[in-house]
Amino acid sequence: MKKTKLLPSAENAYEYPLLIKSLLLSGKRYSPNREIVYSDITRYDYLTLNERIARLANALEKAGIGAGDTVAVMDWDSNRYLEAYFAIPMIGAVLHHVNIRLSPDQIIYTMNHAEDDMVLVHDDFLPLVEQVAPELNTVRGYIQLTDSSTAAPTTLNVVGEYESMLAEALSEYDFPDFDENSIATTFYTTGTTGNPKGVYFSHRQLVLHTLVTAISLGSSDANAMLRSDDVYMPMTPMFHVHAWGVPYIATMLGVKQVYPGRYEPNRLVQLFRDEGVTFSHGVPTVLQMVLNCEEAKSTDLSGWNMLTGGSAPTQALSAQMADRGINFVTAYGMSETCPVITMVNLKDEERALPIAEQSAARILAGVATPLVDIRIVDTEGKDVPHDGESVGEVVARAPWLTQGYLKEPEKGAELWEGGWLHTGDVGSIDGNSTLQIKDRIKDVIKTGGEWISTIELENLISKHEAVSEVAVVGVPDERWDERPVATIVVREGADVSSDAIKAHLKQFVESGEIAKWAIPERIEFVYEIPKTSVGKINKKLIRSELDA
Amino acid sequence: MKKTKLLPSAENAYEYPLLIKSLLLSGKRYSPNREIVYSDITRYDYLTLNERIARLANALEKAGIGAGDTVAVMDWDSNRYLEAYFAIPMIGAVLHHVNIRLSPDQIIYTMNHAEDDMVLVHDDFLPLVEQVAPELNTVRGYIQLTDSSTAAPTTLNVVGEYESMLAEALSEYDFPDFDENSIATTFYTTGTTGNPKGVYFSHRQLVLHTLVTAISLGSSDANAMLRSDDVYMPMTPMFHVHAWGVPYIATMLGVKQVYPGRYEPNRLVQLFRDEGVTFSHGVPTVLQMVLNCEEAKSTDLSGWNMLTGGSAPTQALSAQMADRGINFVTAYGMSETCPVITMVNLKDEERALPIAEQSAARILAGVATPLVDIRIVDTEGKDVPHDGESVGEVVARAPWLTQGYLKEPEKGAELWEGGWLHTGDVGSIDGNSTLQIKDRIKDVIKTGGEWISTIELENLISKHEAVSEVAVVGVPDERWDERPVATIVVREGADVSSDAIKAHLKQFVESGEIAKWAIPERIEFVYEIPKTSVGKINKKLIRSELDA
Repeated sequence: MKKTKLLPSAENAYEYPLLIKSLLLSGKRYSPNREIVYSDITRYDYLTLNERIARLANALEKAGIGAGDTVAVMDWDSNRYLEAYFAIPMIGAVLHHVNIRLSPDQIIYTMNHAEDDMVLVHDDFLPLVEQVAPELNTVRGYIQLTDSSTAAPTTLNVVGEYESMLAEALSEYDFPDFDENSIATTFYTTGTTGNPKGVYFSHRQLVLHTLVTAISLGSSDANAMLRSDDVYMPMTPMFHVHAWGVPYIATMLGVKQVYPGRYEPNRLVQLFRDEGVTFSHGVPTVLQMVLNCEEAKSTDLSGWNMLTGGSAPTQALSAQMADRGINFVTAYGMSETCPVITMVNLKDEERALPIAEQSAARILAGVATPLVDIRIVDTEGKDVPHDGESVGEVVARAPWLTQGYLKEPEKGAELWEGGWLHTGDVGSIDGNSTLQIKDRIKDVIKTGGEWISTIELENLISKHEAVSEVAVVGVPDERWDERPVATIVVREGADVSSDAIKAHLKQFVESGEIAKWAIPERIEFVYEIPKTSVGKINKKLIRSELDA
Repeated sequence: MKKTKLLPSAENAYEYPLLIKSLLLSGKRYSPNREIVYSDITRYDYLTLNERIARLANALEKAGIGAGDTVAVMDWDSNRYLEAYFAIPMIGAVLHHVNIRLSPDQIIYTMNHAEDDMVLVHDDFLPLVEQVAPELNTVRGYIQLTDSSTAAPTTLNVVGEYESMLAEALSEYDFPDFDENSIATTFYTTGTTGNPKGVYFSHRQLVLHTLVTAISLGSSDANAMLRSDDVYMPMTPMFHVHAWGVPYIATMLGVKQVYPGRYEPNRLVQLFRDEGVTFSHGVPTVLQMVLNCEEAKSTDLSGWNMLTGGSAPTQALSAQMADRGINFVTAYGMSETCPVITMVNLKDEERALPIAEQSAARILAGVATPLVDIRIVDTEGKDVPHDGESVGEVVARAPWLTQGYLKEPEKGAELWEGGWLHTGDVGSIDGNSTLQIKDRIKDVIKTGGEWISTIELENLISKHEAVSEVAVVGVPDERWDERPVATIVVREGADVSSDAIKAHLKQFVESGEIAKWAIPERIEFVYEIPKTSVGKINKKLIRSELDA
């Protein structure tokens, strides 16, 4: 370490820790009367939000929860969840965002693994929780969240109903200072194999993610998404990677916030219209459902700023958004990255295009946000050129990346191989610093020292009119390490040969889109392509079937 | 300290320090081809800026400068100064921003006190530096900055001319990581008595000031000042409190930057027009000079975003700005605070007013920026009400306040009395969280347990048509601690009595603007009001003369 100049602080100087409570200071100063809306259930202003956060802190303390404990939340998107975003970490406890979409066994695993002490649970999840409760080893009690006048009956060991507890609690709480590296949140990420892995984020990390992402969303004239007068409604659930960090940003800026409860497309569109929503974010499938719902057909959606991510949006979705007057851009990240590390930032020449022609640029992963350092590297960790064509694994450094996996040091070390967080994604970076994700590294085909993106190959093969569905995987090859194999479902009534597919691909070799060696020798025609439970192509199964 | 949950990082996880180098990552990604302009002397793009920063680092290292050393800069606002903003701290050295307006004795004092090792000096300051050089105890050498093709001859121990040194240096530098609490910058603040005091800021502090101030300048729809497409030109010198932190923000955002060299009002207006400047900042006197200059008369100034601060702007200046179509708002801070801790944030009802009627709101100190905690406290450190009338000393906490005064622990402890930074300013906070500065605490009159603002009294007295100039000071009083005394210069040809002034003030008692006890018993008519060398009223001298 360099011998830089470090100076003593005055003995009584306040050394300001970066704590989540510091994000709560400005919103009520900017907009004391702006509203927090929970569907058609409740609405109140920022002064009340602050008061309720203090009440929740007191209520938790009375229920025996303190610094170092872990509090799980199982709720739809609500004002209560927002209160939990602040109050739980602000008393020094850890907020465990339970993924309510996991299987009961996975929920048991994650809640035991996170060592949850207390659970905030919405009535809708009582049947699930009652089922798993006997196997939860650390939970001392449950706080019931209800949207009715009376809480649902339950066999759980309930310490109280949320609103009653808040009503009885004091409206002020002197939130303490503590180490900014204290863990504020944890949640689990699932792979195709093994148990879910816990990621964890400190107060410092969440504050820095909030500041930088606020700048990314607000300071760009190219694609402003969220500024003070906007009205925010999430369409990525709050248990999912901090709803991309936006509840913290919106609260810091004093923005009007609308929490829609359980996602129902028509209801989301109604809220958009009735509450004057101007900024939302969601994964492509959710956005597609919203666009296609009945209510959307009769609603003017123009002026809606929409951020997408989670998986690559199609150009068709982007074009559809543009048609509807929606300002649509993409960000990139994952559970391990808090999540935002890149966001589309249109260049002058892209902005000059008609909106319909901007679609291609708006669905790329975008440019690394301030403070973020990303690289694309080959298998030896060496940088590949930023020419928009060469691909490598995306690795990152930023002040807000999970520092490991909860209680799994080996997996954490693997994530951080070489001191860079390995995203597991393969991509290219062009001369405009724009990242394009090409594939998951485990799906990429390594052949003759080069990488072939299976997604790219699939896109090109699917352009053949006879192809209904296609999956490309790599199979071991003695000479080339791996070679691509395409499995194809032929469109009903159509007919096509392997040679015809290869001939089809040759045009893309000639146009320079793929290399000659990307053309698979082996093409299998199948009746069906196996999928995972969430509808993704099950490449692992395909590989094992091809091996057999 | 609360026992929160701290988790180990993976052994190879990268713990990201907040270093100034991290601010340099994004600008060139967003805008590789945007320009940095130095008056009519040079212009280049962001890629070149990054390369030149690396060259400067190599050149400094070759000149024997390394981590822990201190490098002084004496330059007008230039691209070279911007390069120094980054390269000097990024090699782990301390950048001493020399205030070239200090007296030679003060410059000698500050340069010896800061222990400067190397000095970057513009040709224009050679006579000054040659004069003081024999008394500089720590300086090992000088680097010459010149705007001509050949550097001016000098007797100084010059190690090289800046451009030649850069040309010879390597264009890449692997900037190291080090402790984020390393000191990055230092500079001196002068009081009316005693030696200048050194404040100092760490890398962490400057990064956090940059992020939060970027949000304050960009995320507000009420008064957006600086976003990605803006063109920035400082009118607060770069040696003065980091030019309010904006060069770091602009570089992070990839904004076009225009550095005007030595400030000359007509030249500033030409650059505004010719380079398409849209955002500047300056103290009221500089802005007034710019508005009044010849070039301004024939130039359309509309669309210029203008931030002011440093001292309270008058409503007349605000109105004049509005007349010219300038979007004018105020921020507040001081050398000790990096500087920005509050900024005007117009409320909806204020924005709804015609622009001319917004003037009053635009000249207040504004609302604390995100993460900043400000209080107004009485002499016992207790909060006074936020009613817009009660006054107290403004005290602050933020992640970027100087942690003391360089090598003066007692003064640092005084600054941080009670763990809050004491600004020395007296102000009120209204129900909209808006701070209004009323006076310097040393000028405030403490009478009968209440505080009277001398500035407020002066404003009211000056409304009398016979009053040309007025100064109010407090003099000791056995019964009331202090009582106000007004010294007045009568307008030429006018005549007025003490009683007439008192009668004049009574109307403001009746309208509730001041308390009855604010009316001075003693009023002195004088020929002249003594001023300090920088044109401020010398209240210390007035008090001593009244005592005598």
